[in-house]
Amino acid sequence: MQAVQDFIQQNKKRYLEELFELLRIPSISADPAYKGDVERAAEYVAESLRKAGVDKVEVCPTAGNPIVYGEKFIGPDKPTVLVYGHYDVQPPDPLELWESGPFEPVVKKTELHPDGAIFARGSCDDKGQVFMHIKAVEAMLAKGSLPCNVKFMIEGEEEVGSEHLGIFCRQNAAKLACDTILISDTSILSNEHPSITVGLRGLSYVEVEVTGPNRDLHSGVYGGAVANPVNILCRMIASLQDEDNRITIPGFYDDVLELSTEERAQMNKAPFDLEHYKKDLGIAEVRGEKGYTTLERATIRPTLDVNGIWGGYTGKGAKTVLPAKAFAKISMRLVPNQHPDKITALFQKHFESIAPPSVKVKVTPHHGGEPVVTPTDTPEYQAAARAMAKAFGKQPIPTREGGSIPIVALFEEVLGVKSVLMGFGLDSDAIHSPNEHYGLFNYYKGIETIPYFYQFYADGKNGGM
Amino acid sequence: MQAVQDFIQQNKKRYLEELFELLRIPSISADPAYKGDVERAAEYVAESLRKAGVDKVEVCPTAGNPIVYGEKFIGPDKPTVLVYGHYDVQPPDPLELWESGPFEPVVKKTELHPDGAIFARGSCDDKGQVFMHIKAVEAMLAKGSLPCNVKFMIEGEEEVGSEHLGIFCRQNAAKLACDTILISDTSILSNEHPSITVGLRGLSYVEVEVTGPNRDLHSGVYGGAVANPVNILCRMIASLQDEDNRITIPGFYDDVLELSTEERAQMNKAPFDLEHYKKDLGIAEVRGEKGYTTLERATIRPTLDVNGIWGGYTGKGAKTVLPAKAFAKISMRLVPNQHPDKITALFQKHFESIAPPSVKVKVTPHHGGEPVVTPTDTPEYQAAARAMAKAFGKQPIPTREGGSIPIVALFEEVLGVKSVLMGFGLDSDAIHSPNEHYGLFNYYKGIETIPYFYQFYADGKNGGM
Repeated sequence: MQAVQDFIQQNKKRYLEELFELLRIPSISADPAYKGDVERAAEYVAESLRKAGVDKVEVCPTAGNPIVYGEKFIGPDKPTVLVYGHYDVQPPDPLELWESGPFEPVVKKTELHPDGAIFARGSCDDKGQVFMHIKAVEAMLAKGSLPCNVKFMIEGEEEVGSEHLGIFCRQNAAKLACDTILISDTSILSNEHPSITVGLRGLSYVEVEVTGPNRDLHSGVYGGAVANPVNILCRMIASLQDEDNRITIPGFYDDVLELSTEERAQMNKAPFDLEHYKKDLGIAEVRGEKGYTTLERATIRPTLDVNGIWGGYTGKGAKTVLPAKAFAKISMRLVPNQHPDKITALFQKHFESIAPPSVKVKVTPHHGGEPVVTPTDTPEYQAAARAMAKAFGKQPIPTREGGSIPIVALFEEVLGVKSVLMGFGLDSDAIHSPNEHYGLFNYYKGIETIPYFYQFYADGKNGGM
Repeated sequence: MQAVQDFIQQNKKRYLEELFELLRIPSISADPAYKGDVERAAEYVAESLRKAGVDKVEVCPTAGNPIVYGEKFIGPDKPTVLVYGHYDVQPPDPLELWESGPFEPVVKKTELHPDGAIFARGSCDDKGQVFMHIKAVEAMLAKGSLPCNVKFMIEGEEEVGSEHLGIFCRQNAAKLACDTILISDTSILSNEHPSITVGLRGLSYVEVEVTGPNRDLHSGVYGGAVANPVNILCRMIASLQDEDNRITIPGFYDDVLELSTEERAQMNKAPFDLEHYKKDLGIAEVRGEKGYTTLERATIRPTLDVNGIWGGYTGKGAKTVLPAKAFAKISMRLVPNQHPDKITALFQKHFESIAPPSVKVKVTPHHGGEPVVTPTDTPEYQAAARAMAKAFGKQPIPTREGGSIPIVALFEEVLGVKSVLMGFGLDSDAIHSPNEHYGLFNYYKGIETIPYFYQFYADGKNGGM
């Protein structure tokens, strides 16, 4: 193991340069214009796996973006770890808020990252974290000390709902057979407080369209007499939450798993500084569901957020138009045991029911994802906890996160295997936002931690824990 | 007079071709990118006045877009008519809904215009209507029978609030001295029911910005715990109207001049077919303030319409962002005796007061305009009524319109003169919308009516009515 860790230290500069190459490819899965770049990113990941010494590397076509697969077989007596991650990224909009190009990675120091952080779209989510795994496996193979069989499955549609991953898993279930799935696409509490994610929210995402008149109208001639679809859309959206910021869709909370008072007390012991949180975001007050703490609102409670809204004249100056249409993208984060399909159906039914007769409403579901809770008594969780304790010098805290990785539930259903969510990002890394970054500390700490995971996991599976 | 009318009939083809030239110039005042085209349109109007025989034509610079001035002096014993209009146009967005280019005029037949209508931005509002006046004066001068002194003042900022017209009027009050102001920038009820506008709504127009966190956030990591400015903006906008569609801004209705039961009964006698209105707009139901008819809602009652809204991700696919900001353009149509500055101030105060502490709000006033009621017992109204009766073969109905021409109140204040609103458009002409058009019938009928106005106005001022 020391040889592996030494190898990592000796190759840090190269590990960074190689990641930069991947970050320079704008593999934006949401925008069909970047299809070629998405494929280029897949090829780069495949080539990196080959160079690391991984076998049977292939770029597997799907009806959407390709999935990169590779494996290294050590022995039939060894446990098999499947590494999952994604090489696609979120769109970089709004571009004007980036201080350096989203696809021109640079290292800059920040308050939380005094040693520097890599600024680029995908640096943390998830190219940087995927690359940690490739480099850790490379180091172990270079030193002949990989103690498990390992398989890689790196997809290109995570940011748009992993539409074709389910089919791929079903069609390749035998090939993907494994003992656990290791995923680094989440955060730790802070660089001083390592943590492992044991819960993730699910997602229901819809687009709504409200249509009033059959053409844009002059707001002087028709205003006051004809329903304005923007005003109506605002009213409909506003009505989806009550004064206590509870969601008003009938049945929305029916399946929500309420935590016990003890569980809530336990989770609120996690280090959290509300004043720092507000200062970091530049807000005077937080806002959320009555009766819950900020930490709870962001993790164990479902939400309803408008992710985008548009309608009418949005250019410079004043145009007195009564627009024909208004649109919004609305997402709901879900918690155990809510089901995205059921919630989407409830939303659709309710939203259509509250539309006044003066407008027409269309609801189009986008992707969804199941919420997840992972157990802490599994060999993989124990291995991850020991690995983090070894690398950080401190026991990790089990935490629940607000984001969604819909495929965790899928893996359990299709492959019958639990995942372990050993991520290394920080909530403040601005993933999905301008100026996304990933600490050099976190990138290298991840690479150092992963070999310990394999070691402890192999030990644990061999009864050596 | 017969010679004038004959001249008009003989020159109809040329009158149309010359208007097309003006319509081809994209003089969009809202967008600084079209500054050169705005100036080109001013020059074209000036040149058209010169060719018509108008004297002292000049393109007067202002701090904004130029004002075209010209005059024809006939004699000190003649009354003076000031013709006001505008050569600037609304932006053509959304472009994709135009069936032919907004600045490529063509004549096409429609259900309401079996003889054809001119399709182009500005064809009705207001280039086509301005051009009627130039051509009518041209015909009268060609036949040596202009019975009044006439002055032209054609501006280029009407669609953006006539910001510099007030200063121009104040600085040139002596030059602009006149007995009445004649404006064609309004509608008639239908080609079978001529009408003259005696009331116009005023306007208060604001842009609002709601700021939440200092950057776009991941809606999974922060959703539910941090105020979403789009959700908040929707809630704030929704709260501006109650269940009866009455505006909730304190003091908003304080100055509203309520019409008597008799006045309302009188105005509801105007020909209006609700089923046709709904069918034309493609709506199942109208919607507006409780207790008022559609005609009343569109004319004698104030409104609050969102003219544009935007925030967050509005591209293709799904982006799970909790946006930093949300924006809306909101306009309120005002009725006598509401005052735009007062209403804007009430809006601003109220909107700021309802913002929760979790967001910051900025309200930026755009232009405003005073509501107008013009009397029917003036020589100019009587002359317009007789002229229309002569040209259409039917007495015009005095009507109130929902739109705003803010400068009517300005003219009364600065020049001390009443205006007469003798427009020839139809509400269905799609002004401010894609596929704006203006009936050939209306264009030519306007040119024919205007000489009668001058004749009857001169007669009336000489006691000959």
